[in-house]
Amino acid sequence: MAAAPAAAPTRAAVSSSSSGVTFCSGTSRPSPRAAAASASAPGWRRRGPAVSVAASSGQSAPGDIDPKVDILLDSVKWDSKGLAVAIAQNVDTGAILMQGFANKEALAKTISTRKATFFSRSRSSLWTKGETSMNFINVHDIFLDCDRDSIIYLGKPDGPTCHTGAETCYYTSVFDALQGSKPSEERQVMTTLYSLEDTISRRQKETVTEGKPSWTKKLLLDKQLLCSKISEEAGELNQTLLDNEDKSRTASEMADLLYHTLVLLRVKGVNMEDVHEVLRKRFSQSGIEEKASRNKS
Amino acid sequence: MAAAPAAAPTRAAVSSSSSGVTFCSGTSRPSPRAAAASASAPGWRRRGPAVSVAASSGQSAPGDIDPKVDILLDSVKWDSKGLAVAIAQNVDTGAILMQGFANKEALAKTISTRKATFFSRSRSSLWTKGETSMNFINVHDIFLDCDRDSIIYLGKPDGPTCHTGAETCYYTSVFDALQGSKPSEERQVMTTLYSLEDTISRRQKETVTEGKPSWTKKLLLDKQLLCSKISEEAGELNQTLLDNEDKSRTASEMADLLYHTLVLLRVKGVNMEDVHEVLRKRFSQSGIEEKASRNKS
Repeated sequence: MAAAPAAAPTRAAVSSSSSGVTFCSGTSRPSPRAAAASASAPGWRRRGPAVSVAASSGQSAPGDIDPKVDILLDSVKWDSKGLAVAIAQNVDTGAILMQGFANKEALAKTISTRKATFFSRSRSSLWTKGETSMNFINVHDIFLDCDRDSIIYLGKPDGPTCHTGAETCYYTSVFDALQGSKPSEERQVMTTLYSLEDTISRRQKETVTEGKPSWTKKLLLDKQLLCSKISEEAGELNQTLLDNEDKSRTASEMADLLYHTLVLLRVKGVNMEDVHEVLRKRFSQSGIEEKASRNKS
Repeated sequence: MAAAPAAAPTRAAVSSSSSGVTFCSGTSRPSPRAAAASASAPGWRRRGPAVSVAASSGQSAPGDIDPKVDILLDSVKWDSKGLAVAIAQNVDTGAILMQGFANKEALAKTISTRKATFFSRSRSSLWTKGETSMNFINVHDIFLDCDRDSIIYLGKPDGPTCHTGAETCYYTSVFDALQGSKPSEERQVMTTLYSLEDTISRRQKETVTEGKPSWTKKLLLDKQLLCSKISEEAGELNQTLLDNEDKSRTASEMADLLYHTLVLLRVKGVNMEDVHEVLRKRFSQSGIEEKASRNKS
């Protein structure tokens, strides 16, 4: 499969540089972390359409598709039914919102409209998430995998994605189910930072009936204590730099600071997702550095 | 479809509480955020097997499967080929690492061994990610979607997931490709926080040749300035609580603090993933609150 045809390139080179669309297989194995320095700007920094696509209104006929888009669409390894897996992910939280399938038209429409669009296998038709609920998923970037048969729509949802009203469709933990717990929209798939946020949120709702309250509960109830801890932890984080302490100490002090600031966010009713959104919007506008420099120095 | 048979429950109730496995459809529509307070403990807090599965060594015959697991496996809506989409996600960063397919045996093996296992359609056999590269994906929890035909393996990878050596298989940005950029393992799918970390990492590698260095570059080069900014931002975050400022101010100050602490992490060569891992491990051990209380108060 070293020279697969352009219509079905699996890990093979497809070079169409004359038309401005360039693909090639990844053969070298650099450390992605180490090599990150020279990467191009993150996709979420570009909010408007990155390229001119004729179908910008989403009303185009198939024939209107920009040739560059057409070449890209042909490079996807569609299955025997003309489909590829399409996964929608929240750009700020990383939550996997839903998974469906896309055909060529669905991906073309997503590229042109920036609204996550799928092919409904049961209805045999295109389906833009949100077309009835108005909870669109606003796509900031689209990624293909190394085999070119799997797609990520990285975007920001306007509201809950699941038809049940849950933020994500994934709220059934297999291990919870095996322990006898019912699936719960309150127990969605969550990564570390958001699980910690969720734990703190639960502490906030708990009533202290007897015994010593948890440390989190104490912090939630005592603003002065919380603020003094945040200042203290910030100082300890700084000290790891100034005193040239080892990396594990820095990671540990940053973890302490993050935890205490998450408690403050909870007291204020602010979600970490809101904070990440602020960061994303700054970057997509004039750049956080410029803003920080202008306001602070 | 209000009473689908147990073998193919699509959004329908399947109650097998006598065997300790309980599923039901989500019919109410509470706000997941608002309701989070009463959720059960996040899955990543339980690192050992949550249930007794006969196949704990991964060497069991199909007949050895715990009846509870068997009921769960039967509740998945396998397609006509006996498959469901299986997505592997990094529990700390939220990065979608890869997507494959699972059959009943693959899911059973993942449950019992806690190593992400798929069914290879090309080889018609089970395939545990890492069985040749040793880069296993250690599964902390498994989620099913509302339709029960899509699976998330939420876990921690031992190393790069992609066969190219990239951290994730998704390093081809459609919008970059349409602009003529080649796919690059340096330009992987990234959520907001990790994109910001990546941007700071790029600033670190840049040489300042002429003109004013960027604010990030200034901070990277001046430890005293960086530490004084972190203390200042922590103080401003606290002030939003003490002065009862509005939520948007809190989100903005937290964004400032996060950005400056990310610069410090970069100077120290510490990744935010390391920090999230520290938080996860604390939670899975004795709990961050107890630890924080013991060490700090």
